[in-house]
This record gives sequence, structure tokens and C-alpha cells, in this order.
Amino acid sequence: MFEYQEWKHVFKLDPNKEITPEALDQICESGTDAVIVGGSDGVTIENTVDLLSRIRKHTVPCVLEISNIESITPGFDYYFVPSVLNSQNPDWIVGLHKKAIKEYGHLINWDELVTEGYCIVNPDSKAAKLSEAEADLDNEDVLAYAKMAEHMFRLPIFYLEYSGTYGELDLVKDVSTVLNKTSFFYGGGIKDKEQARTMAQFADTIVVGNIIYEDLEAAISTVKVVKG
Amino acid sequence: MFEYQEWKHVFKLDPNKEITPEALDQICESGTDAVIVGGSDGVTIENTVDLLSRIRKHTVPCVLEISNIESITPGFDYYFVPSVLNSQNPDWIVGLHKKAIKEYGHLINWDELVTEGYCIVNPDSKAAKLSEAEADLDNEDVLAYAKMAEHMFRLPIFYLEYSGTYGELDLVKDVSTVLNKTSFFYGGGIKDKEQARTMAQFADTIVVGNIIYEDLEAAISTVKVVKG
Repeated sequence: MFEYQEWKHVFKLDPNKEITPEALDQICESGTDAVIVGGSDGVTIENTVDLLSRIRKHTVPCVLEISNIESITPGFDYYFVPSVLNSQNPDWIVGLHKKAIKEYGHLINWDELVTEGYCIVNPDSKAAKLSEAEADLDNEDVLAYAKMAEHMFRLPIFYLEYSGTYGELDLVKDVSTVLNKTSFFYGGGIKDKEQARTMAQFADTIVVGNIIYEDLEAAISTVKVVKG
Repeated sequence: MFEYQEWKHVFKLDPNKEITPEALDQICESGTDAVIVGGSDGVTIENTVDLLSRIRKHTVPCVLEISNIESITPGFDYYFVPSVLNSQNPDWIVGLHKKAIKEYGHLINWDELVTEGYCIVNPDSKAAKLSEAEADLDNEDVLAYAKMAEHMFRLPIFYLEYSGTYGELDLVKDVSTVLNKTSFFYGGGIKDKEQARTMAQFADTIVVGNIIYEDLEAAISTVKVVKG
């Protein structure tokens, strides 16, 4: 299934983390809708290409979530481009993107490029620190960013990023009610199938990441409850 | 004509500047496609409502270009919301917008709200100073912002703002070639019909502002050459 709007479950693999061939086979053959390649630090062209080539032995759709310009490589089905709406540094909202378009715009296939409006809500996370996010938000702030993503910028994806911590269910539910055309991605802290099922009630797409490296079996179990 | 995508010529009136009833009649009955109400400083709810009520005696479509939250009032056909893509302060890209949505989101009719991706290219202008724009751009920067507006954020409008100075024709031409779905608004320094005609060759919509207050007849003459 190559339409990201239809994805219910995706795994996120970090090029900077080790994964055995057997574990990668299980992830790719799990029935998940897609594998996203992306991370906060240590992402290089070498480890990105290496992971891509290993995933490409399987038929699962494969996305590069761009974390820096240096690690962009052809061969992915989609390129997800984060714009951190709650960053305090314009580079993370539009600035780095402008530089990339200026340098590589002529190479970009715009049909493969999908902008994610990120809202990072865990102030202690690496992602928040790296992107200088004002992550200490109240629920109304988050809902305002979600509405902004849908209405002001007509973004294809709003990504609520709890980054390592499990989210507040009431807020996730409220966000789901304000998004219609924009797909709602939830990421953060999903460690078992119950948590996956819970968040998948409200988010269009749940992103399962860290648990892959901590408890592969638990990670794999999140697919079936979401995908039925 | 209420479809802003079809507008070729608009006048921009500053609520903070005086205009006689006769001059306003001429502007509104000039055949222009719309009147935009907006300015950089001194815009209040009082002078905005006053100007709105005077324009509303005519049938010309009337837009509020939002410059601050305090001066927003119902009764306009559209609300244009600038997002200054080349600002160095996130408030002007997304921050003030988030605050407004948080406070007034429940009142907003999203169908009337149109986001303008601004690129301000006159470093000496009030607009550039107010919005902390990095306005000293080379042509490739401007083209990158235009592509960003169309592809990354799918904005309805890209607004190239020369703010008081007349633009560089080659750049305006180049911008026109990279925009397809996004409407290209050009603003700045149009003082006579020749300049209007020239910019209208490439911009979808030309915005005529300051000259209204300096030479009304010259301002009025810009309509016919574009709409003729």
C-alpha cells in the first residue's frame, strides 16, 4: 500500500542504531504499512544507504524522514520533511528546507515529498532539544498547532511527537477531532499492543520506534492489533 | 469576482492613512478586482472598521490582510494571513498565528482564511524591519521560498513584497515560472500604468498601494492596462 494517507501502522528505524538481519526481516515482514528511516542524531549517508539497501530486499514501502541534508539519498518511496511548528528557531520551521531547496530543488520529485507539521511535546527529548522546540505546551496550544497544520498550511501530516514518552490520551483524542484532511500521526512511547490499540483508536497512523530495539516481540505485536 | 485566484489587480489601502470619500469612491469603482485593507503600523480596530464600512458602500470584494490580532473584525470577504517565510523570528512565520488560533480558532471560518507566504525583499522597508525579515536575498533564495510555498506548504498565495521599491523584472519572471498552483502576488513600487503592465505580464496579481496616496490618477490608471 503506497498511499501514506491509508497507513495505520508504521515502524521507525534509526540508521544510527544496530539491528540484526533477522530482526529487520521480522520488522519488514510484520504486516506494517511502511518503514520510516529517521533519527535525531548520528544519521549519515552511509548508515542511511546501508539501512535502505537492507530494507529494499522486502516489499514494504520505505520512507526517508529527512533529518539532515547530507544523508538524503535516492531510492525511497517517499521523503517526509519535518517542519517543527513549535520550534523557536526558524531554521527548523522553514530555514533548513529553504537551503535544501535552493541547493537540490532541481533534483526533487515533489510528488514524493510530504511535509509533516511536527509538534514536539516532550521537553526532555533529544528531538525537542535539537530543534529548539518550545515543548512545554498546554493542550490548547497543541490543538492550535493542529488546526494550523490543517487549515493554514494544508499539510498532509500533523505529527504529534511524544518522543520516548507515552502520550496523554485525552489530548490525542482531541487532536483527532480537529483534523480532517490532514493525516494524524502519533509517535512516542508505544511499548505493547494495548498501548498501540489505544492510540490507534484516535490517530490515523501510529509510529512504533524505540521498542524495536528493546523488545522486538512486543514491537511486532503492535502490528496485528492495529492492522486487524 | 470573489475568487481571489482570478484576481489580476488589487488595491491595498492602509487604515492608518487618510483617504477622502471621493478618492475612495474612485478606487472602489475603478474596476479593480478587490481592495485589500492592511498596513504595517498604526492599524487599529477603529480605523479598520471605519475603512471597512466605507468600502462596503461599494460592491468590490474586500479583504482584510491581518497585521495584528487586535484589529480583526467580521465583515470582510476574505482574511489574508501573512506568514513571512524569510523572517528570522518564528512569531512571524507561525507563532502569532498559533496564538490567534488558540484564542479565536472557534470563531474562524476557515473557508475565508487564505495564507500568504510572504517573501520580503526590501531590507529597508518597515515591513522587513517589523517582521525581522532576512531580506537581503539572492535570486536563488527567493526562488527556493517560492518553491517551498507551492510544494512544501501548498500555500494559496506567494507574495513577493518589494514594499515601496519597484522589483527586479528578471526575478519576477523567474518566480512566475516556478509557481503553478500557488497564486503569485507582486507588490511594491508600482507608480504608473507602464510599471503595472510590466509586472502583470508575470505576476498573477499585482498589488497597487502607496501611489494611491501620492497620485490617485496614476493609481487608477493601473487598473485598465491590467484588466483591459
